[in-house]
Amino acid sequence: MYKLYWSAGGANMVVHALLREIGADVEMINIDIHKGDQRSAAYLKLNPHARVPTLVYDGDKVIYESAAITQFLAERHPESGLAPLPGHPDRGAYLQWMVYLTNTLQEATMHYWHNDNFIDGADEQAKLKAHSQQRIAKIAQFLDDHLAAKGPYLCGGKFYACDYFLAMLARWTRLMANPLHQWPHLNKLIRAALDRPAYRRMLEEEGIDQPV
Amino acid sequence: MYKLYWSAGGANMVVHALLREIGADVEMINIDIHKGDQRSAAYLKLNPHARVPTLVYDGDKVIYESAAITQFLAERHPESGLAPLPGHPDRGAYLQWMVYLTNTLQEATMHYWHNDNFIDGADEQAKLKAHSQQRIAKIAQFLDDHLAAKGPYLCGGKFYACDYFLAMLARWTRLMANPLHQWPHLNKLIRAALDRPAYRRMLEEEGIDQPV
Repeated sequence: MYKLYWSAGGANMVVHALLREIGADVEMINIDIHKGDQRSAAYLKLNPHARVPTLVYDGDKVIYESAAITQFLAERHPESGLAPLPGHPDRGAYLQWMVYLTNTLQEATMHYWHNDNFIDGADEQAKLKAHSQQRIAKIAQFLDDHLAAKGPYLCGGKFYACDYFLAMLARWTRLMANPLHQWPHLNKLIRAALDRPAYRRMLEEEGIDQPV
Repeated sequence: MYKLYWSAGGANMVVHALLREIGADVEMINIDIHKGDQRSAAYLKLNPHARVPTLVYDGDKVIYESAAITQFLAERHPESGLAPLPGHPDRGAYLQWMVYLTNTLQEATMHYWHNDNFIDGADEQAKLKAHSQQRIAKIAQFLDDHLAAKGPYLCGGKFYACDYFLAMLARWTRLMANPLHQWPHLNKLIRAALDRPAYRRMLEEEGIDQPV
């Protein structure tokens, strides 16, 4: 039994899809960020950064950070086949892509969506946002080249949780000048995620869609 | 047998210390970033981002991203006790801290050291750098509070690879107005890393020191 604190289209997307694919028993608790639920005293006790998602497991244990929950759930439910376990030949690549996606691509999208976290002044924030789109386009080209050479998925022939993670981040680029789904091999990977019933169920339950 | 591509004081620090603690057979290959070794054609084939570290394992397999190599090595050598394996009660916390450190604290230090990656203009870069120090001070306070309540290490009573990772990032703040070692519980954690022969050997082999 899990509890997932989530907000439509947030970093919970990947965790939510994973829980549906695993078929886990989960209580979904919506955090309405427009009402400021994420800054309530009760939520800050679970997640001091006032961000989604947060997962509660084993009664009262708490984990946050989307990329960490993703790894945690995928290895806790190995029957899902969504992560190569330690010792598997794909393990190194899987860890590398999880880290790269969260510390490079996810962080770059933060410069677009939450530039006020990083610099003061409206002009400076606009410049940071504009620059993030250039950086994201370079990352997209790099990932597309990688998928072309060694895909169709990040680790090669098998779809893993890191591919769900990338599909989520792709949605976060949908309003940019060059969204990730415009690159051909990224497009195929996003479509592969959308072809999975668990990902579609997540989109439906969050009340969102994803352009490809 | 491993090959580690490294540069003094780079993100290889944690990986280098880990390899010494494991006692692994490793060939150390220095990348002289002042000579531009990281942009040689041979190195870019291993690491297209021109960054250190890169680890070669099992003959010709390659992994980069410091936080990924850290997880990879710690779980590949479980006798080192430097990572709680899947199923261990500390596993969720370990994954959470590895992700948080790389996508939040490590990225914030990039705004200090490599601000030209993120925004154009000398004034804007100086503002991004100044703001990063405020952010890092907040992160330091948050981590110090966490260690005070639930330490002495990130996951509680046991020293893991995530604590080495934090000790490395602490060194990267040494020239800032408020370096991490000025917070009392962070200071204790950094000293705990420095007390370990493998970490001291890494500093010596890289020809660097670390203030506390």
